Amino acid sequence: MSVLAARGFVAGGLASGVKPDGVADLAIVAISPARPVTAAGVFTTNLATAAPVLVTREHLGDGRAAAVVLNSGNANAATGAPGRADAAKMCELTAAGLGVNPTDVVVCSTGLIGIPLPMPPLEAGIPKLVGRLGSDDASAAAAADAILTTDTVAKVAVAIGSADGTVFTVGGMAKGAAMLAPAMATMLAVITTDAAIETRALSAALEVAVAESFNTVLVDGAMSTNDTVLVLANGDAMADRPPIGVGGPAFHNLVDALSRVCRSLSDQMAADAEGATKIARVTVSGARSTADARLAARAVAGSQLVQCSLNGEDPYWGRIISELGASGAELDPEQVEIAYGGIVVCRDGIAAAHDEVGLAAVMAGREIAIDCELHLGTGEAGVTFTDLSHAYIDENRGTS
Amino acid sequence: MSVLAARGFVAGGLASGVKPDGVADLAIVAISPARPVTAAGVFTTNLATAAPVLVTREHLGDGRAAAVVLNSGNANAATGAPGRADAAKMCELTAAGLGVNPTDVVVCSTGLIGIPLPMPPLEAGIPKLVGRLGSDDASAAAAADAILTTDTVAKVAVAIGSADGTVFTVGGMAKGAAMLAPAMATMLAVITTDAAIETRALSAALEVAVAESFNTVLVDGAMSTNDTVLVLANGDAMADRPPIGVGGPAFHNLVDALSRVCRSLSDQMAADAEGATKIARVTVSGARSTADARLAARAVAGSQLVQCSLNGEDPYWGRIISELGASGAELDPEQVEIAYGGIVVCRDGIAAAHDEVGLAAVMAGREIAIDCELHLGTGEAGVTFTDLSHAYIDENRGTS
Repeated sequence: MSVLAARGFVAGGLASGVKPDGVADLAIVAISPARPVTAAGVFTTNLATAAPVLVTREHLGDGRAAAVVLNSGNANAATGAPGRADAAKMCELTAAGLGVNPTDVVVCSTGLIGIPLPMPPLEAGIPKLVGRLGSDDASAAAAADAILTTDTVAKVAVAIGSADGTVFTVGGMAKGAAMLAPAMATMLAVITTDAAIETRALSAALEVAVAESFNTVLVDGAMSTNDTVLVLANGDAMADRPPIGVGGPAFHNLVDALSRVCRSLSDQMAADAEGATKIARVTVSGARSTADARLAARAVAGSQLVQCSLNGEDPYWGRIISELGASGAELDPEQVEIAYGGIVVCRDGIAAAHDEVGLAAVMAGREIAIDCELHLGTGEAGVTFTDLSHAYIDENRGTS
Repeated sequence: MSVLAARGFVAGGLASGVKPDGVADLAIVAISPARPVTAAGVFTTNLATAAPVLVTREHLGDGRAAAVVLNSGNANAATGAPGRADAAKMCELTAAGLGVNPTDVVVCSTGLIGIPLPMPPLEAGIPKLVGRLGSDDASAAAAADAILTTDTVAKVAVAIGSADGTVFTVGGMAKGAAMLAPAMATMLAVITTDAAIETRALSAALEVAVAESFNTVLVDGAMSTNDTVLVLANGDAMADRPPIGVGGPAFHNLVDALSRVCRSLSDQMAADAEGATKIARVTVSGARSTADARLAARAVAGSQLVQCSLNGEDPYWGRIISELGASGAELDPEQVEIAYGGIVVCRDGIAAAHDEVGLAAVMAGREIAIDCELHLGTGEAGVTFTDLSHAYIDENRGTS
């Protein structure tokens, strides 16, 4: 279902030839019937911003969009003015097919950086795909597949919510299996909803949802040039009702549904992380502030040494306390408590006697919870991350 | 030679039994004849500070020390009040043997975190070693060997300088092959000199030397609980002259000699980095400020994706421009120039035609220079780092 779970959307995907191996590489998600609706986005803060991000930010200036066109196989990043023209051209081709303005189309690209986007396949493929868009499951699946790069599986999610008794649906698709980092990743996500919502409320809801999901997943700490999360809200489930504004129960319900979709997508990205054999969730509690808790959790999650320990199933908490101490967060080392899977291995900053057999079983599992209690305040934050494996290196040592 | 290159020092090392495998694990470097002399240190800023660092900072409060006692095989970190008592006890045992005050002895430990220091071997080993200290090459080598952990070779360096026509010598030994990071590492270094210098001048000289050497090496970004660089200056080469103060040619010469020793030791650490097959030096120039240049260089050096590219000998500059953009440094992506081994692969932020054969030869080398010119100002900084390899993971996936 994914981006077609909500009413009033069409989608599709095909192999245009951007990827040389004949794999699907082009997707479109559009409002049906074609028209601009409320839309919002969250983008990479990388200053080496890719061309499609620049074009999309401009086209979203009015808070409205009618369609998203996405390609995989080439990031259209570090491609200069020609790259920006290519991104704009992708919007024009899509708009021409749908009968909307080019500025009502937004664009995403993912793949290798620094290589000019091959336009002939897209100039042929986009009109062809516009003619094939559908509202069935196969069309949704084709779109979700066409945005993948090193992902091994498509990522889709659906949630429902209600506004004053009217049920609305939120659905999404995403790609991303490496370069995941707080403040986003080589990841794209397109989310659709048939809720009616004001532009400002939609932006706010998306910010909250992203902060609680994509921004708490860290695989290798790299923030890419192309990271984009888009949401389109066509109001089809709430035709006779006023749009949801900021605040109140309906807004809360929309944030909740959007957050569930984003969290499901980000969990799927962590589970599919390149070469990962373990998925860990580090939670730092008792920090002096939420900001401190985030700093500390990210330091643990981003540590190559902690990641290697997980790969070896070694509960070496000395590396964790060292990362907490180097994180920049306030710390009294002699109050720190560290547990793997609920088994406390460090209390008052020193080794604690524990169940060795139970601990070995925790470390042998695929999912490992690491809890760090600082005993300084009420700040809490969590980050999902993975181990560092031979396969991760093998995946990333070459581009060919 | 190392710590015995300068006049008036003795040293030694032996296997006390802290390491279970009978490998050397205890070293002492002392002034001869035993007496406190001018001393300075630079320490980890990790808040989970190891016990020996806490004790050494206290004992160096008066800017004087007579000896350094060091053990490998156990970091005496995350060991609480008993750990601090153990570190103090190491100083007491050394002081008793040398006939100086315990507060004139400083202490370093390196090895696993969170395990109580085994004191019986040290209680027997320290008095034995004090009786064996020598001024010959074998004694210097024994000390340099006894501080190693996962290092494959000892690191030693010597430089000479002059103060108003009098020649002085600076010598040092160090250990460290992982957890190297700006703001230091699981590294220890002891440096000796027979120059006469004021305490304040020695501290200032050491800060400069460390900033230009150990703090520009990054292996895995981890800052350890135990990092320590110590320098002892006994004045034996300048008995009839006033001590060097801050400023002036003699001070400049001392900073220069100290920097050369630190840089040689830090280069040796990078060359011996766990599992490394490549040593890279990234230089960022043309940044808006030196601080920006440092941010950008550290982002590139700390990138797992860049490290994997080097392992695969893949000149994928897209990852470098992405790291520059995410580093926090000011950037105009369309002015960026990137070169590997002097071969420009990116100009004006986009791909540049280049000599593919020459580039392949650069990437196949063991040492790779990466130059990033930002064209925004005069800020410049460099960081030495290594590739990420299967062997690094294997070295760090377990503690046993």
